[in-house]
Amino acid sequence: MLATILHKPGDISCEEVADPEILLPTDAIIKLSASCICGSDLWPFRGLQPVDRPMHMGHEYCGVVVEVGAEVRTVRPGQFVVGSFCISDNTCPHCRFGFQSSCMQREFMSGAQAPYARVPLADGTLVATAEVPSPDLVPHLLAVSDVLGTGWYAADAAEVRQGSTVVVVGDGAVGLMGVLAAKEMGAERIIAMSRHESRQRLAREFGATDIVAERGEEGVARIRDLTGGVGADSVLECVGTAQSFDQALACARPGGTIGYVGVPHGVTFDGQRLFFGQKRMLGGPAPVRRFLPDLIDRVLNGKIRPGKVFDLELPLAHVADGYRAMDERRAVKVMLTL
Amino acid sequence: MLATILHKPGDISCEEVADPEILLPTDAIIKLSASCICGSDLWPFRGLQPVDRPMHMGHEYCGVVVEVGAEVRTVRPGQFVVGSFCISDNTCPHCRFGFQSSCMQREFMSGAQAPYARVPLADGTLVATAEVPSPDLVPHLLAVSDVLGTGWYAADAAEVRQGSTVVVVGDGAVGLMGVLAAKEMGAERIIAMSRHESRQRLAREFGATDIVAERGEEGVARIRDLTGGVGADSVLECVGTAQSFDQALACARPGGTIGYVGVPHGVTFDGQRLFFGQKRMLGGPAPVRRFLPDLIDRVLNGKIRPGKVFDLELPLAHVADGYRAMDERRAVKVMLTL
Repeated sequence: MLATILHKPGDISCEEVADPEILLPTDAIIKLSASCICGSDLWPFRGLQPVDRPMHMGHEYCGVVVEVGAEVRTVRPGQFVVGSFCISDNTCPHCRFGFQSSCMQREFMSGAQAPYARVPLADGTLVATAEVPSPDLVPHLLAVSDVLGTGWYAADAAEVRQGSTVVVVGDGAVGLMGVLAAKEMGAERIIAMSRHESRQRLAREFGATDIVAERGEEGVARIRDLTGGVGADSVLECVGTAQSFDQALACARPGGTIGYVGVPHGVTFDGQRLFFGQKRMLGGPAPVRRFLPDLIDRVLNGKIRPGKVFDLELPLAHVADGYRAMDERRAVKVMLTL
Repeated sequence: MLATILHKPGDISCEEVADPEILLPTDAIIKLSASCICGSDLWPFRGLQPVDRPMHMGHEYCGVVVEVGAEVRTVRPGQFVVGSFCISDNTCPHCRFGFQSSCMQREFMSGAQAPYARVPLADGTLVATAEVPSPDLVPHLLAVSDVLGTGWYAADAAEVRQGSTVVVVGDGAVGLMGVLAAKEMGAERIIAMSRHESRQRLAREFGATDIVAERGEEGVARIRDLTGGVGADSVLECVGTAQSFDQALACARPGGTIGYVGVPHGVTFDGQRLFFGQKRMLGGPAPVRRFLPDLIDRVLNGKIRPGKVFDLELPLAHVADGYRAMDERRAVKVMLTL
């Protein structure tokens, strides 16, 4: 089959590889219904994360099970499934505590920018739908797998509640999904920080009530104005730079909460600043598995349409164009058809 | 009156000063029933915090109101009151959110190691009891003002719940009060990290189920053993050093919560370590005012006896001996009689 391989930074292509096979009795093989490119795929593509050997790219996926290992019990061939980018057994103490992204058997999914993929720990990782959904729902179910699940976790970690005032730092795909999540959780006010008109429009569509284009001290001052000098109850940090964390910390009210899902790059926190700022913080790779059943239901019921975040669709063979479009910020998020 | 003045590091004495007076119409003057020395008083005493000019020491207090300013409405002369070390109006948005220690009008109390003290923003800061309590309750009510309130906040911030497994890092007075708080909140397992036999005994008396004397990697390994390899649901960080924060971070399970009340000295956090560790964190100066009514009730009902944390009692005139006893760790916490 054709699959996406990153050889070295900037050098990505779609090439012939062996079809995936069951390696362990807990594996499943799925035929993907669609795939996509993640913001985090850009780190190695840009050389900001080492590429020691050719990497099989792609960790967002949904599709139909074609084969399962001898020990798989909860999914069977023919079922449509959605999984998380974190492989988890869903039975260990960390999973049962709702932190499947820290599963004692955790692996990170790979190789999903391809027509077929092997999913380890299939029983723990995959959630099957009752029926194979209609094709128009596929982009929305694909989004659940990572980008929505991650934005949802940001809002959950930031303790968004009915009536909350929320700031979302970052207008990438995850930030936009954070807006959608905050809206679904009942936030009254959702302030999206965004400088790009097309992303502002999407943010409004997903539920943002206010847009702040300013950054840094000006951005903080605008948030203070908009919140009557108080600051936000919840801040979703969806970038991962020192600047974005500064923004997040300065925008949250004392006792407010920051949910952070942008992998921190070059970020350190001063202990006294955190102490006297009195901000609650929780971050990390999203335990998407915790949210999958609920999010799948919301998509199937037509309550949410997270797949709108895909603003460019390309056939898998053109995957390199997709990486470039996202790298150059010409696209928010690219869906790959198979 | 005689009051406690720190002239420069190590140079503390009890000397004649003018009696406090009402300066603002929102002030109250109280006659203290007892006073005490706080671990945080040792920072300037040890020269680890600058002493630019003579400091009027003392911020833990309870006693009888003797005079109030013209605008004070909720307390009146003759009433017994307990206040927080943080002065707060209890009406601003931060106070109403439960973070009175970040009150928009916040001041830090001072001058309470003396027979009389001025309490600004008396309506917001002070909580009166229905009757003047019997003298044997005074040490317990005094403890509520800061040391118990701070330990309580550590447990609250660490989200201790019925059935939780809790680790308390630090066996100072605040750590011991953290043990008591965790016990009251229903923790099933309370592991106190302590190397000192007398403090271990107190920790057990306050509710610790296990004692871990090891520190560093050995300490972390012991906690892992005691928690079946999982880590603690909640960790109370009651020290404030880089080592103690390392301990706290390593002892909490993924998705677990660290409540930190030791003012961080020389502590920085690496963004990626926090991210991948996936620990929830909340710290800061304790919003004791939020807890005062409940904690006063628990003392008056005889449910808790936090005053047991005072293991040395000295007359105010001997305050310098008290500072030395705590500095040399001969005493956990010193009560001053007036």
